[in-house]
Amino acid sequence: MKNHLKILTGSSNTQLAQEICDYLDIAPVRRQIVRAPNDNIKVKIEENVREDDVFVIQTSASPVNHHFVELLLLIDALKYASARRITAVLPYYPYVRADKKDEPRISISARLVADLLQIAGADRILTITLHSPQIAAFSRIPVDQLWATGLLCNFMRLKGLSNAVVVSPDVGSADEASAYARRLGLPLAIMDKRRHADDEKVEIKTMIGEVAGRDALLFDEEVLTGGSMMESIRVLKERGVRRILAGCTHGVFSGQALEKIDASSVEVFATTNTIPLPADKPKRKIAVLSVARLLGDAIKAIHHGESVSRLIEWED
Amino acid sequence: MKNHLKILTGSSNTQLAQEICDYLDIAPVRRQIVRAPNDNIKVKIEENVREDDVFVIQTSASPVNHHFVELLLLIDALKYASARRITAVLPYYPYVRADKKDEPRISISARLVADLLQIAGADRILTITLHSPQIAAFSRIPVDQLWATGLLCNFMRLKGLSNAVVVSPDVGSADEASAYARRLGLPLAIMDKRRHADDEKVEIKTMIGEVAGRDALLFDEEVLTGGSMMESIRVLKERGVRRILAGCTHGVFSGQALEKIDASSVEVFATTNTIPLPADKPKRKIAVLSVARLLGDAIKAIHHGESVSRLIEWED
Amino acid sequence: MKNHLKILTGSSNTQLAQEICDYLDIAPVRRQIVRAPNDNIKVKIEENVREDDVFVIQTSASPVNHHFVELLLLIDALKYASARRITAVLPYYPYVRADKKDEPRISISARLVADLLQIAGADRILTITLHSPQIAAFSRIPVDQLWATGLLCNFMRLKGLSNAVVVSPDVGSADEASAYARRLGLPLAIMDKRRHADDEKVEIKTMIGEVAGRDALLFDEEVLTGGSMMESIRVLKERGVRRILAGCTHGVFSGQALEKIDASSVEVFATTNTIPLPADKPKRKIAVLSVARLLGDAIKAIHHGESVSRLIEWED
Amino acid sequence: MKNHLKILTGSSNTQLAQEICDYLDIAPVRRQIVRAPNDNIKVKIEENVREDDVFVIQTSASPVNHHFVELLLLIDALKYASARRITAVLPYYPYVRADKKDEPRISISARLVADLLQIAGADRILTITLHSPQIAAFSRIPVDQLWATGLLCNFMRLKGLSNAVVVSPDVGSADEASAYARRLGLPLAIMDKRRHADDEKVEIKTMIGEVAGRDALLFDEEVLTGGSMMESIRVLKERGVRRILAGCTHGVFSGQALEKIDASSVEVFATTNTIPLPADKPKRKIAVLSVARLLGDAIKAIHHGESVSRLIEWED
Amino acid sequence: MKNHLKILTGSSNTQLAQEICDYLDIAPVRRQIVRAPNDNIKVKIEENVREDDVFVIQTSASPVNHHFVELLLLIDALKYASARRITAVLPYYPYVRADKKDEPRISISARLVADLLQIAGADRILTITLHSPQIAAFSRIPVDQLWATGLLCNFMRLKGLSNAVVVSPDVGSADEASAYARRLGLPLAIMDKRRHADDEKVEIKTMIGEVAGRDALLFDEEVLTGGSMMESIRVLKERGVRRILAGCTHGVFSGQALEKIDASSVEVFATTNTIPLPADKPKRKIAVLSVARLLGDAIKAIHHGESVSRLIEWED
Amino acid sequence: MKNHLKILTGSSNTQLAQEICDYLDIAPVRRQIVRAPNDNIKVKIEENVREDDVFVIQTSASPVNHHFVELLLLIDALKYASARRITAVLPYYPYVRADKKDEPRISISARLVADLLQIAGADRILTITLHSPQIAAFSRIPVDQLWATGLLCNFMRLKGLSNAVVVSPDVGSADEASAYARRLGLPLAIMDKRRHADDEKVEIKTMIGEVAGRDALLFDEEVLTGGSMMESIRVLKERGVRRILAGCTHGVFSGQALEKIDASSVEVFATTNTIPLPADKPKRKIAVLSVARLLGDAIKAIHHGESVSRLIEWED
Repeated sequence: MKNHLKILTGSSNTQLAQEICDYLDIAPVRRQIVRAPNDNIKVKIEENVREDDVFVIQTSASPVNHHFVELLLLIDALKYASARRITAVLPYYPYVRADKKDEPRISISARLVADLLQIAGADRILTITLHSPQIAAFSRIPVDQLWATGLLCNFMRLKGLSNAVVVSPDVGSADEASAYARRLGLPLAIMDKRRHADDEKVEIKTMIGEVAGRDALLFDEEVLTGGSMMESIRVLKERGVRRILAGCTHGVFSGQALEKIDASSVEVFATTNTIPLPADKPKRKIAVLSVARLLGDAIKAIHHGESVSRLIEWED
Repeated sequence: MKNHLKILTGSSNTQLAQEICDYLDIAPVRRQIVRAPNDNIKVKIEENVREDDVFVIQTSASPVNHHFVELLLLIDALKYASARRITAVLPYYPYVRADKKDEPRISISARLVADLLQIAGADRILTITLHSPQIAAFSRIPVDQLWATGLLCNFMRLKGLSNAVVVSPDVGSADEASAYARRLGLPLAIMDKRRHADDEKVEIKTMIGEVAGRDALLFDEEVLTGGSMMESIRVLKERGVRRILAGCTHGVFSGQALEKIDASSVEVFATTNTIPLPADKPKRKIAVLSVARLLGDAIKAIHHGESVSRLIEWED
Repeated sequence: MKNHLKILTGSSNTQLAQEICDYLDIAPVRRQIVRAPNDNIKVKIEENVREDDVFVIQTSASPVNHHFVELLLLIDALKYASARRITAVLPYYPYVRADKKDEPRISISARLVADLLQIAGADRILTITLHSPQIAAFSRIPVDQLWATGLLCNFMRLKGLSNAVVVSPDVGSADEASAYARRLGLPLAIMDKRRHADDEKVEIKTMIGEVAGRDALLFDEEVLTGGSMMESIRVLKERGVRRILAGCTHGVFSGQALEKIDASSVEVFATTNTIPLPADKPKRKIAVLSVARLLGDAIKAIHHGESVSRLIEWED
Repeated sequence: MKNHLKILTGSSNTQLAQEICDYLDIAPVRRQIVRAPNDNIKVKIEENVREDDVFVIQTSASPVNHHFVELLLLIDALKYASARRITAVLPYYPYVRADKKDEPRISISARLVADLLQIAGADRILTITLHSPQIAAFSRIPVDQLWATGLLCNFMRLKGLSNAVVVSPDVGSADEASAYARRLGLPLAIMDKRRHADDEKVEIKTMIGEVAGRDALLFDEEVLTGGSMMESIRVLKERGVRRILAGCTHGVFSGQALEKIDASSVEVFATTNTIPLPADKPKRKIAVLSVARLLGDAIKAIHHGESVSRLIEWED
Repeated sequence: MKNHLKILTGSSNTQLAQEICDYLDIAPVRRQIVRAPNDNIKVKIEENVREDDVFVIQTSASPVNHHFVELLLLIDALKYASARRITAVLPYYPYVRADKKDEPRISISARLVADLLQIAGADRILTITLHSPQIAAFSRIPVDQLWATGLLCNFMRLKGLSNAVVVSPDVGSADEASAYARRLGLPLAIMDKRRHADDEKVEIKTMIGEVAGRDALLFDEEVLTGGSMMESIRVLKERGVRRILAGCTHGVFSGQALEKIDASSVEVFATTNTIPLPADKPKRKIAVLSVARLLGDAIKAIHHGESVSRLIEWED
Repeated sequence: MKNHLKILTGSSNTQLAQEICDYLDIAPVRRQIVRAPNDNIKVKIEENVREDDVFVIQTSASPVNHHFVELLLLIDALKYASARRITAVLPYYPYVRADKKDEPRISISARLVADLLQIAGADRILTITLHSPQIAAFSRIPVDQLWATGLLCNFMRLKGLSNAVVVSPDVGSADEASAYARRLGLPLAIMDKRRHADDEKVEIKTMIGEVAGRDALLFDEEVLTGGSMMESIRVLKERGVRRILAGCTHGVFSGQALEKIDASSVEVFATTNTIPLPADKPKRKIAVLSVARLLGDAIKAIHHGESVSRLIEWED
């Protein structure tokens, strides 16, 4: 009985996909992805995948909707090409922040994404650091969620930190920051937004905990425009921190984010390659950590029916 | 065309159900719920409900699994009795805290609950204060989630607070506490757990923010054994707070919780009737706020196709 | 490719489960089942089951709904733990008697049970003696139904019967009694209920067929309170039978059933261990026949793709 | 909002369908059913049915599979023609006797029928006297089951019975016969099949209960070839009964059944028009009772959301 | 792990099924198909098929609906007999021409067929020459569609054609005829229907392209009554063609089709055995090409997970 | 009971949507569609739509995948906002040409589109001129397909045609061209592609039928780059046609299509507004016919349960 491990790569992150293939010592499935004059995508799997165990790698990079539909088409093609099992490997899960109805009559899009993947034919999902752990339960197919927390902490440990403190940029992120603090054995400080007594509309940032004279570590699960990160850095500087080091799992870096980081007083900004960085942007302070081994190990474990949970750094 | 609004009550919280019926000026559907010698439940709807719009009220009170299966049976009976629409009204949602896979190979039971309700025949869910807002997206049927936040804040405002502070009992609850603080226009303090330097296994509570000499407000979405609440009260007392007032939406109060509250230095402990309180326990310091009007208004709005979102206090 | 046969046991009948494991020479899957203070169950599979062929053993013993929800949670946990196939082994099927709508607006709960098991993730069902054979068709997943008829007949054959007759306790059970009679090569008698000529509400039992001076065998698929069994025994005694021997597959024995049997004129009452007997009840006349080999053989056959039908004593 | 009650008739029982339409004072939906040269059926609804409440009447008369596929096509056409609700009215349910797996590897076809009807688009089923009441639970859409028991009993009551007895033709039918006996206030006798002592293969019929000199009533839910009915009549005659009257709900009367009845010593054989009788067969002793009012009343009740259960003669 | 390739044959085309079995050197699964007196079909699989890879062969020959329901019952029986995978092999797909809604309120029956096969339990479909290629997408299970085009072209090439032309019998078939023309390297002519200038109701056939003095080849995907084929032959003769050779994949040949072909001026009429020919009809001019090898190769490829697409003659 | 007709417009064709709203005299539903920095779409329905009958208008214009995902999000938001019924109005259906598997291992994307719309929550589809009529059967929800054929023919009739002929640009389009020819009462000519005798790779266009000295009408269901249309015009000119008029339903006009049309010898090119034309392109020869009334009438009919088929110009 056939059951070959195969990797099919979308067009969103071909470099990471290639790293994974290299790590697994396997050639990616030959495929064609063409964008027709009418902007329709045409996908074609160019080798037999019947009864194979296929992992499709596609991240949610810009243009987000284009890549997501491409993923659905690839899965559909695999299903009708009689693949035995199809695992959607989503280094950065599409619409991951749209995970709750915090306003009336919006779409909980992260949930819809799970439904669409399943109806297209996905049998499993493999992903890294969801915005909230509940998202894994949006899906009626098994989800393996990995974290890049360990990669980021290891990187920071090598930076010669002294008298350091992990700073949460707001109260809502305090739990996540606390997890980093515990893992690194460091204390925690939290910034809080307060409405100004005189003008309800002005918000000022207050600091809960001590930071002056210390090395401050800032973590976020993802960075978009970098606006709030920049504000945190500014506040920390005002409060007299010594060094500022920052890290995030998903570096979306839209708009002028990379320029802002480059110009800021951050010493180093660590991120991963779940999303490819733009080629033509300043990256002087950026350190990119690869998730290829992490994903490769998980893919092997899933294929062989071995435990994936041992690859996960469970938080208490 | 028929489409009568009907209320069917499970056996878990008949008093709240009756309050809702009174508020809506409607008699509950006649029904029989019998527990047979072999511990099987037999339900029977004793009046015609064809083409009616039926709301089944059942909370997740102990014995939890018995009440949950009873709810599934009631919904099944309604479906085959040709009700037009069945809304499961869950003042306290079953297995609400089991909403994520934070350990390997556990059940995300809150998700399973949604699947089971839907397969049994529920068309909608109406509930109050979920453990995380993502739970509403576990379901492929529409969920209306209400909050009792307003009830609790109004109650506290009448307590003559002065120089008060909202205290979050841990970093993970800081976001929720912050919402209360904003709504009440109060500052925030956060307790953090730290491992003791000498003995990794001992945890000490540190306080981020000022509390001495102030009135402290503690909120939690639900209280089980009250253990962590008691510890918070003890720490606050040590730190020199003046008065302590506490509140929670879902008062499970299992074990000796009510005895502990009674014996503690809390001034008043406000909760709601989403879960019925045991008759034979001390309730000297407990203030019970009824959610009957809140649920009744939502039921009316759902039945008439009016906006439910206006009943919800959306957090920013 | 992995595909190990694994046994996961619920908490309802750990002794039978252990017997099955012993027979299969296999250790049960390590698991944790905890009942939290708020009466919620938390289950955790403590070893890797990816791509394994898992059989979950849970019977419908009291507290019935608690055990049933526990079963659903175990199946859910297995599904998301990536088991290849999940078979619910139900020695006594939950809500097995609620298999038809013989009153308006009730739940056909045995059907709902099948739906709930499937949506939770069960791929197959293995069970013993359903109340009606149609129940196997309630499920869209394959059901293997075994019978304990052979165990009971073999037991009776060793009892030195002479001039024996199988007695059906009522007309509705005549078909089942007739099957036992044929298998044992014995004649059949049937009790019928008649309304009293003078008082419509009084029912008297008449006997269709001869029983005086004979050994009478009474069989039932299950015994709850034993009330109707006791009445049958009383009537048989009045009619002058010599010895009375009784048997049932599913011994629920709720209320005072075991006390009544102990005090009755029955010589021996054979049952199986599909439901565990209470430890603290009189069992002097009870003979317990184990279904462990029967279930074990079926589990092996299912796992290896061998015929299960050869294990079934098909009735004509 | 539209919601007209409409009747669409298949080609299996146009006369009963017309009687129902007459009773409801409604014209059947104009439709075309053509049998193409290649034996394919083509159906066309010839009037607008959007948002209407359509009842499709089709019984399981020979050619059974042709009529069943025709029914599926009619339902499919209605679904895509945007009917609001589609109720399959099945006076005689297809494959009603194939309701259990009493041999290995057969199809439980009555269950499959339910699945096929639902996937084709049926929202409800209305039927008369199923082979077993469990069949109603094969379907995930609501089933209303009516009985023709009352029609048959009323007919018999007018026959001047004296010293009558209801006779069950075998033990398996004893429960059903008992229900007739109770309803008519008559005693019960049961025929049982016994293997001959000398030759295991020869079966002899024994009689449990008294019949000599009495009027005997034989009931069956359906009659196929009439073979077993004829044998019962022969046995009853040998036992010295006075008059024999017989009745069944579903008169399939295949093969030489009507000729046999005509030639037998039965006085009258009552049946209903759930299945049309062949035009060219002897019907001298046949009395046909129409179910048109019964079905018409149920259709009205379903359409108006009124109780159907009051039309059902619930057995205890 | 078991996974035997097994062939189960319906009763519609036992000869083709036997040819396939012979080619695969495999005995068909033992089974019983009985037609009961009440016209119900009873199917029984008479050997163990658990965990096997079963291909059910059933074509859409008359009586079409009977054979289709038989197929559904066989699939249902296989599903509940625990076959690992069930492939419906449909040499001629049922209701293949009913693939669009070209009139209001008809059934798109070819789509319904796909739904019914899936709900009954089919995992895959294997078929030959669909009326339109879109039909393969009606199904949510994978469909492998083969063509008999190559068989027909090879046959024609051996007929010593000279100065030949492929003639499309109407504009709607021009695309298909063009494909044959390209494959055979021949020119194309097209007949068109025109309304007569004087009488709108009379249609005359005009010819687009040259045919006089040439050998004309007529192809159709299926032939029903042969009416339009006969008319084409007549028109071609009037236009002075030399020889006429015809071919079709699916020879339904209903009514007097074979008599007409026999009496016509066609030289030879090639068809395949997707539908069995009637035994008692003239077949003097008919050449039957067997699809057994084609289907057998596809079955082997599907079973072994090899490419089926190499067996398909993809048209450009 | 509420059931208001509401129109929600996507961002792909706001002008057509506004025309439809004007025609229906209704204001579009207030909504917000925001494109976040990370390229995620956020949709919000800004008024109550509970129990309303909502039509969402979104065409498949470039960027195609962005608009399609936006549509899915709008439908999802409507579903969870408790709309009674959601109809996806797709003037130009996404991926409409990907309707068959004419190469191995591709996606039949038009089918996937139907599945995705349904799982997102669409209850119906309303569309114009599908690439093949079978596409309507890809969906398990009802599809109303309209045609713009009448609009195009009416336009051409006003152009003073004399001695005109409809020309099919290739054999595959002959059927569609023939329908136009019949409707306009004109003859038909067909272009065919032939491989050159000397060089298999060179294709030459031959003409089947007469065109010299005539007015030629070219129709296509959609025009992408206009390449094949331009080639047809060139060939026609070579063949000595007098005037050339062209029309298509869906004017995609990608790349330099509009420039090419402007520079060509076509007299006028009629199209519809199913896809908005680019603002900055030459449109001198383009005549845009609005489908707003056609869609508006269909929306009204669907809402009121009136026949839509009367709006459809059924082809024979």
